[in-house]
Amino acid sequence: MKYCSHCGKPIKLKIPDGDNLPRHVCDSCGAVHYQNPKIVTGCIPEWEDKILLCRRAIQPRHGLWTLPAGFMENGETTSEAAIRETLEEANARVELRNFYCLFNLPHINQVYILFRAALQDLDFGPGEESLEVRLFDREQIPWDQLAFAVIHETLRLYVKDAENRQFCAYTGDILVNPEDRDRYQVRNIRREGIS
Amino acid sequence: MKYCSHCGKPIKLKIPDGDNLPRHVCDSCGAVHYQNPKIVTGCIPEWEDKILLCRRAIQPRHGLWTLPAGFMENGETTSEAAIRETLEEANARVELRNFYCLFNLPHINQVYILFRAALQDLDFGPGEESLEVRLFDREQIPWDQLAFAVIHETLRLYVKDAENRQFCAYTGDILVNPEDRDRYQVRNIRREGIS
Repeated sequence: MKYCSHCGKPIKLKIPDGDNLPRHVCDSCGAVHYQNPKIVTGCIPEWEDKILLCRRAIQPRHGLWTLPAGFMENGETTSEAAIRETLEEANARVELRNFYCLFNLPHINQVYILFRAALQDLDFGPGEESLEVRLFDREQIPWDQLAFAVIHETLRLYVKDAENRQFCAYTGDILVNPEDRDRYQVRNIRREGIS
Repeated sequence: MKYCSHCGKPIKLKIPDGDNLPRHVCDSCGAVHYQNPKIVTGCIPEWEDKILLCRRAIQPRHGLWTLPAGFMENGETTSEAAIRETLEEANARVELRNFYCLFNLPHINQVYILFRAALQDLDFGPGEESLEVRLFDREQIPWDQLAFAVIHETLRLYVKDAENRQFCAYTGDILVNPEDRDRYQVRNIRREGIS
């Protein structure tokens, strides 16, 4: 960010009065431009004992498998966004079941919110951002071909829950390993619900 | 948004190729400026059978009571942001307990994420954005002096749970009443956890 989106003049990175973090500030019109984390929302579409995954047609992680999920838009609820993303990426209609997990990814300023969902029919197929959309038995999940650490951890919890025949709700953090920024650490996984 | 924050040239509101929603697009440098919902995170600080509330020193809803909560910052987790906001608004140290609720407020592009938290000591007091910080017995919550519908609904669920001696986790939506935009409708409240 180099210019003020309100008045077009150059902006500076500085700590505004009464604040304690550097912000993009316009000395010309006085605007302060905050930047905040984005929500990525999606679902685990279920059909009998199978789940639906999408193979990415876009970067990052082109060619790898993921759950249907994407950036929540203004004016939506998290549920509406998860349903829309599933329709866009997999041409699939789902009815959302429960909230399944919330993961913080502070190194990329994202919060993932994923639901379990009932796939409504088998008339699905790749949307523009997918190469391929398939149902997988839990035993066939392509663990070494998953696109993101957050998807790997979500599916790990999910498969364990499915084996226990009891689904929970989870919160947790996916952090970069400070000694190797290409590796991830899963932290603070907590089972949520009755307490 | 009138000018491109990358190059300073005027921007247009139009639907980019391959998209289906109008975005702020710069025809000069090609940048697309997305706008997405923000996360407000905070907690219900508990001390014995009491909870801590803050009376707002800022607009909107100056003078009314709320839970300590605010906009999540880049680089934080939701938990870290909730703890920071409680320190800033109430000078109070908390240890987070469980995730309590997630509310969508699509009319203002916000998602509230609130936790239950254990207040660590009684050495609290108003931060810059609060006029007053107090512990309230559940019977003394100032229902007609609460700042926001989302706080009202969170505390309604919380008091009911406390009476049942069992706290749950919830998701739901706070929507504006289309016939009277000053009134709110609480919708799709769902108890989350084991399913």
